[in-house]
Amino acid sequence: MGFGDRLEQAAAAKKSCLVVGLDPVLEGLPGEVTQALRGAASGGEGLTARAGAAFALFLSEVIALVADVAVAVKPNTAFFERYGAAGWDSLREVCRQAKKAGLLVIADAKRGDVAHTAAAYAEAFLGDLPDTLGPHVDAVTVNPYLGLDSVEPYLRLAVPRGKGIFVLVRTSNPSSRDFQDLDAGGRPLSLRVAEEAARWGEGLAGRSGLGPIGAVVGATAPAQAAAIRALMPASFFLVPGVGAQGGKPEDLEPYFLPGGRGAVVNASRSILFAFQSEEGRKLSSWREAVRRAAIDTRDALEAVRERCRG
Amino acid sequence: MGFGDRLEQAAAAKKSCLVVGLDPVLEGLPGEVTQALRGAASGGEGLTARAGAAFALFLSEVIALVADVAVAVKPNTAFFERYGAAGWDSLREVCRQAKKAGLLVIADAKRGDVAHTAAAYAEAFLGDLPDTLGPHVDAVTVNPYLGLDSVEPYLRLAVPRGKGIFVLVRTSNPSSRDFQDLDAGGRPLSLRVAEEAARWGEGLAGRSGLGPIGAVVGATAPAQAAAIRALMPASFFLVPGVGAQGGKPEDLEPYFLPGGRGAVVNASRSILFAFQSEEGRKLSSWREAVRRAAIDTRDALEAVRERCRG
Repeated sequence: MGFGDRLEQAAAAKKSCLVVGLDPVLEGLPGEVTQALRGAASGGEGLTARAGAAFALFLSEVIALVADVAVAVKPNTAFFERYGAAGWDSLREVCRQAKKAGLLVIADAKRGDVAHTAAAYAEAFLGDLPDTLGPHVDAVTVNPYLGLDSVEPYLRLAVPRGKGIFVLVRTSNPSSRDFQDLDAGGRPLSLRVAEEAARWGEGLAGRSGLGPIGAVVGATAPAQAAAIRALMPASFFLVPGVGAQGGKPEDLEPYFLPGGRGAVVNASRSILFAFQSEEGRKLSSWREAVRRAAIDTRDALEAVRERCRG
Repeated sequence: MGFGDRLEQAAAAKKSCLVVGLDPVLEGLPGEVTQALRGAASGGEGLTARAGAAFALFLSEVIALVADVAVAVKPNTAFFERYGAAGWDSLREVCRQAKKAGLLVIADAKRGDVAHTAAAYAEAFLGDLPDTLGPHVDAVTVNPYLGLDSVEPYLRLAVPRGKGIFVLVRTSNPSSRDFQDLDAGGRPLSLRVAEEAARWGEGLAGRSGLGPIGAVVGATAPAQAAAIRALMPASFFLVPGVGAQGGKPEDLEPYFLPGGRGAVVNASRSILFAFQSEEGRKLSSWREAVRRAAIDTRDALEAVRERCRG
């Protein structure tokens, strides 16, 4: 089954389009988690080993807490990479745990390089070749600035494995306008990227009408979303920027296809660190706060999908 | 001393603007290197550990062979990342060796993400904070698609440490034209990126007139290079695409500032795997082939710089 069909089926079965972003920050972890590792050696190797272990410990609990609420998790490689090899080991473990818990895994890596190099990145994330350990994820985010030949190596590995990619079309950060909004021959650059990426995916859609090439479209750009949606009817949207970055679930109707299909929405810090919020601190444990935030976000998103259906 | 001054000074002292790209591929290593590791366990963990060790072994020899010929090395993270944590450990070791050998190190990571995430990438590569192990490199390549706020976190760490970044402006791959050549308000997108990136670096140039924000400009685009050069007088160019990708040293005059300053030129496969070429196979050892290729490329580049001077 192709990636679009797999994601659509999972979202329907779980009645959820929530993606939980796994962006761990050592200083933000619950005291209980860092406490458990206090015995570890400190300085250099000890510190990074401790960070890697703390991430794996914390995120495996988060995964268990959200497994029935979310359709996927989205670990961002930066937060693991920051701790070098120890971070990479914990990224791999976290992806393995998420898969075991029945979640799809989207590696938010935003890679983009020439074909020869892109092939190595594709193997790192999508390969499951005998000589790669993974993380072997279901999809990876890619940057379009280098054009088609920088994206093809991912598709070559992804398509036969039922995996996919999400092309950055319109990102959620304020400076996205610096280049993505530039007028490029009568329409903003982000729409030119949308148009091209749709062409790259022609003929690859599955039974759901959705294919292996998705699009990252920030929750902070609802005005652009409708235009991108029109150009990319066969693409899943991965929508970041809800929560800490200011995007609101109730603004997301234009991101969905008719019937509330074709989009998944990510929240990272507002779920992962829910226990630090005013509301979260009132609850009895960090676990309750995380699960409550995930359920509330899922419900808010399901209400939007319900509106799309009606 | 700022990054522009450091790189200019190193290129002058060494009479070289050659950067050797470290893009290791397991199947391409000299038989002698893979032979030495044959005893290692195979399958899964064993295979990646072996790859990581083989890369460190091979590249530490390459570094010694080119240390007096090149001004810098440019490991591309993809080829290490492909082997997960073992790859990351060898990347760190390779960067450490290169620094010890008196080479500057440019991590070709091409990262690009929202500010909060970019800060984690910046710490991973440029930080030398007590809780990161590195690689702690002198500069990192970054993708501009997300705009200024995605680049600022690198500058915040780089500038006080005399380190720098290279913004992808015009890449060396054939599909670079998909978006980088799009007309964006009267000039190609790559020139708009050049213009913006120059603005980001205003007031940051050192005594050499060169600052911490460099530009990646592919050797395969000499027509665009002169226009980018005019817009970015305070930026070092990092020029990939010579050798295997078809760029020729003799076409590179427009990439330099007057006097042959302000650009460094990367060759990866044509040096690293020189022993596989027809000419390289005639030499007595893989080491001789690597060193010969490095010297020949440096000399071809110095001839261009000589022309710029006179």
